[in-house]
Amino acid sequence: MSDTLTVTDRTRLRRSHQRGHFDRETINAILDAQPMCSVGYVIDGKPFVTPTLQWREGNHVYWHGSSASRALRRSREAEVCLSVAILDGFVLARSGMHHSVNSRSVTLYGMAFRVEDPEEKHAKLARFVNGLFPGRYEGLRDEYAQDLKATMVLGMEIAEGSAKVRTGGPNDEEEDYDLPIWAGVVPVRMEVGEPVPDPRNLPGVEMPEHVKTFRL
Amino acid sequence: MSDTLTVTDRTRLRRSHQRGHFDRETINAILDAQPMCSVGYVIDGKPFVTPTLQWREGNHVYWHGSSASRALRRSREAEVCLSVAILDGFVLARSGMHHSVNSRSVTLYGMAFRVEDPEEKHAKLARFVNGLFPGRYEGLRDEYAQDLKATMVLGMEIAEGSAKVRTGGPNDEEEDYDLPIWAGVVPVRMEVGEPVPDPRNLPGVEMPEHVKTFRL
Repeated sequence: MSDTLTVTDRTRLRRSHQRGHFDRETINAILDAQPMCSVGYVIDGKPFVTPTLQWREGNHVYWHGSSASRALRRSREAEVCLSVAILDGFVLARSGMHHSVNSRSVTLYGMAFRVEDPEEKHAKLARFVNGLFPGRYEGLRDEYAQDLKATMVLGMEIAEGSAKVRTGGPNDEEEDYDLPIWAGVVPVRMEVGEPVPDPRNLPGVEMPEHVKTFRL
Repeated sequence: MSDTLTVTDRTRLRRSHQRGHFDRETINAILDAQPMCSVGYVIDGKPFVTPTLQWREGNHVYWHGSSASRALRRSREAEVCLSVAILDGFVLARSGMHHSVNSRSVTLYGMAFRVEDPEEKHAKLARFVNGLFPGRYEGLRDEYAQDLKATMVLGMEIAEGSAKVRTGGPNDEEEDYDLPIWAGVVPVRMEVGEPVPDPRNLPGVEMPEHVKTFRL
């Protein structure tokens, strides 16, 4: 297994400059930091993008949805482009041109496959829940067979793609640093709020550690 | 101008249930709440997704990038799918099946066009900066003609598409409410951090109001 991803024409399409990264460590860290992703696919020659949650196991990413979803049915065993993007801040420069954002993103290309084996599918879904909330899955009621049937799990190999990372302050033209214009970075980040218990929780059921300590 | 968007086969593809919205008010509110978007397009029959920032003016959305970007050049005057997704929380249910996320998303379909007229392009970019940081653009150094040339602005009409919104707590199977399992919502939101001034700001240049009061 190579430490870096395959560089192809399409990975170069967005990666013509210094911000591109092809090493698995950078790519995996971004995938693990943000479950929200966008899956792009083609139906009848036209582009579709679906926001969903992804999770990583080794050198694969997975996502899931309803087996009844036409979108999901059409994206299995087909070429997909999976994108994860994290906004870290707005970069305010002295010229409009050099305004930017600090961000971390990953773009992966490949064939999606469907996880067919029911036991494997079950294990993947357990891993998904436990990946966000460690140990939660084992405390839930057992899945019904029909619920598992109604759920489709798709995956793709992390083989072709790249990450793009921008950090730091503005990069202005040298002569613009003499201008009396405020420049800098306005950071943004995802914050976890106070958990809201379901009013129908049974008396005495306490908030578990995996909720109290949840962080993105 | 209709208050609702066109419902077509492809908007129905993801909108088979009760969470779909086609009214402009809901769609515009989501576009205005989150500049980050994913633009999907097709090159040689294969899907591509690019994260970028969008801004809305009336019934159009715009995005921009380098004129040298092959991705951007290929997505102009072509079918695109623009997706904005905001994660509002994780919904923890009593069964794995009913775990969900609270979120607001918009998916738009249409032909991208390029804003060709230099003055119009300039005005759009000013609107983009001022939309995030009111009044900032007028305080920047004038744009160089070559900078404007190096920037491509793309747009699409908000005509075909839909929004999807999920709010509230878990919806468990009625019999599962008797189980001693903690259920509820873990909210998440984008927070704006303390602005970081560029160390090269000139002495006496103070942080402007549009930075101090910035909220997403």
